Amino acid sequence: MKIVEIKEKAVPINSDIQNAYIDFTKMDVSAVAVVTDVIKNGKPVIGYGFNSNGRYAPSGIIHKRMIPRIMDANSEDYITEDSSNLDPFKLWNIMMTGEKPGGHGERAVAIGTIDMAIWDAVAKIEEKPLYQLLSERYGDGIPDNKVFVYAAGGYYQPGKNDTKLQEELKGYLNMGYSVVKMKIGNSLKEDFRRIESALQVVPSGENLAVDANGRLDLKTAIEYAKALEPYNLFWYEEAGDPLDFDLQAELAKYYKNPMATGENLFSVQDARNLIRYGGMRPDIDYLQFDCALSYGLVEYLRILDMLREHGWSSRRCIPHGGHQMSLNIAAGLKLGGNESYPGIFQPFGGFADDIEVVDGYVRLPDVPGIGFEKKAKLMKVLGSLTD
Amino acid sequence: MKIVEIKEKAVPINSDIQNAYIDFTKMDVSAVAVVTDVIKNGKPVIGYGFNSNGRYAPSGIIHKRMIPRIMDANSEDYITEDSSNLDPFKLWNIMMTGEKPGGHGERAVAIGTIDMAIWDAVAKIEEKPLYQLLSERYGDGIPDNKVFVYAAGGYYQPGKNDTKLQEELKGYLNMGYSVVKMKIGNSLKEDFRRIESALQVVPSGENLAVDANGRLDLKTAIEYAKALEPYNLFWYEEAGDPLDFDLQAELAKYYKNPMATGENLFSVQDARNLIRYGGMRPDIDYLQFDCALSYGLVEYLRILDMLREHGWSSRRCIPHGGHQMSLNIAAGLKLGGNESYPGIFQPFGGFADDIEVVDGYVRLPDVPGIGFEKKAKLMKVLGSLTD
Repeated sequence: MKIVEIKEKAVPINSDIQNAYIDFTKMDVSAVAVVTDVIKNGKPVIGYGFNSNGRYAPSGIIHKRMIPRIMDANSEDYITEDSSNLDPFKLWNIMMTGEKPGGHGERAVAIGTIDMAIWDAVAKIEEKPLYQLLSERYGDGIPDNKVFVYAAGGYYQPGKNDTKLQEELKGYLNMGYSVVKMKIGNSLKEDFRRIESALQVVPSGENLAVDANGRLDLKTAIEYAKALEPYNLFWYEEAGDPLDFDLQAELAKYYKNPMATGENLFSVQDARNLIRYGGMRPDIDYLQFDCALSYGLVEYLRILDMLREHGWSSRRCIPHGGHQMSLNIAAGLKLGGNESYPGIFQPFGGFADDIEVVDGYVRLPDVPGIGFEKKAKLMKVLGSLTD
Repeated sequence: MKIVEIKEKAVPINSDIQNAYIDFTKMDVSAVAVVTDVIKNGKPVIGYGFNSNGRYAPSGIIHKRMIPRIMDANSEDYITEDSSNLDPFKLWNIMMTGEKPGGHGERAVAIGTIDMAIWDAVAKIEEKPLYQLLSERYGDGIPDNKVFVYAAGGYYQPGKNDTKLQEELKGYLNMGYSVVKMKIGNSLKEDFRRIESALQVVPSGENLAVDANGRLDLKTAIEYAKALEPYNLFWYEEAGDPLDFDLQAELAKYYKNPMATGENLFSVQDARNLIRYGGMRPDIDYLQFDCALSYGLVEYLRILDMLREHGWSSRRCIPHGGHQMSLNIAAGLKLGGNESYPGIFQPFGGFADDIEVVDGYVRLPDVPGIGFEKKAKLMKVLGSLTD
């Protein structure tokens, strides 16, 4: 068996929102199709993948480095020993051929995107949902039957007043979410007025998370921490620059409640530095590494190994990104949950069309692969890759 | 005044060499021209830049994100207050618009490449060599009149035996270099035979540096350290993964002689983490951050500020890359020297055509800008960008 072709296309994300750094009207993502010569139900098995929002489509790297390396390889060098399936680890090594260590940025996104498509194909070839395959290969064989998800929203938007923020958050609760997240970091005074408004519509502080998107300096981060602590929030996310581990460690001295970070660390080496130096607390804090931005599930398995060695449970991981790939990993490898962006970053964000959020949890569809085929609008985009 | 257009082209580096990670026959670099509407000697001022070897041409990022951001900007937002020149800091902020923190990889290379071209244009508009301009703006006004350079070679090449290695290194000494560098990391036994051969042709261990390109684990790095220490080498470079700061710090306990690292850290945040956690010794070790791979001189100035705050002299910096940009920075901002790759990575590597290496030092040409116009083969490539 072999990979017949790999297609990639940059697709705009149409979202009229912004966080501290990004105007999402200008953001795009790479959509990838890995076409195999394995035939199921009369059609070739195709795996699909895409990168998460917040980082631009790494189309140039995919076309100039990654696709040629895979297509130039001998298929014997990337399939399993029994020739029955693709081997994502061998393909990962092929993609990293000719790459120096360090500098984990767009390359990590490019590989994460293709890795997602590879795992989708692998599970389809085994005719199993990916969460089932992962649980059998790397876990106890019994995946979680539902996954905690929280609704990430509360973005700054032009003309969005506190009433609109409240309506948005109420909408998430009505959809079945138990925890909602909002952005902070513009100004302490404005943000605390917004947080007070939000707390009027959620049951308690434990149902509200706040996210500074890494924009605060230590002094301001501590000011926020002191003001946030009495609310007993679900978490206080990414206060400072993602690589300023000293800031994170220092901040923990001023904030006894849960904190979360990691979405902007794109390798096992960077993740390990957070664990080594960031003062993160394995009993209460959360880690948000996102496989779609950081060399894929192959690297995420290394991150989980690293966490285990450092005394962290996989349950402390709630990945960034709001995609079905991390949902499968969460169920199969027993993470703590997954992000969700109801209604935004479409059609990439969100889960299967017929799955409801119930008491803050979602179930997973029983279909082979990651489950993209159960999300009609997404499949329209992904399917068009091979038209 | 304004930027009229920005051109970019990926150009292959033709080098029949390899290090631990890279087959350089497949490597390319981005060459960039920033065309202004300022007229000098009857022609528009054009600044040129390129990225260093070891990282691929980030063409996609340059064309999809960086060039549109600059060309869409109002020129008033990137020129100096007196409208006399470009402001590299304002242009840097424009290039980073819509970019999230962290993930410092190909983006850092793309910006480093354009930043080089911007500084070339800035110095040409002021009709000064860049080293002179930098010394006046950020130093004491008196640039170093010569810069220490060492010859980086000693690569693994098919069919290259110890005699050929000796001939290569002797060649560098005959060219005027006092320090030569060779690769290690393939196997301890083979490498020590190669090192013994090299030591037969250089005056002493202090004239030889070795570079493992980040491929050793801690145990092997310590084995090398113990075996290397008696030779009193110039330095022992990048033993382990560039982000494994614990490894670097632990290694220092086993090696009392100079070590060097930093070429694969691409931001001030990453550089700061090396200083915070890597156990690097400000009295003997060397830092090799390369502006052309790491957001340019604008970011390098931040790195120098950070180093000063941590008690490091700029003299401990000997940048990776072997290009004239770092040579100008070395002279203007009083670094410890610059890398050089005699005869390889052409036409990008190396210095002005008429400048000789004398007793391990080079002088700089007295021409406006970085000095590319004094390197004929390079100018042929750079000049072709605007044909």
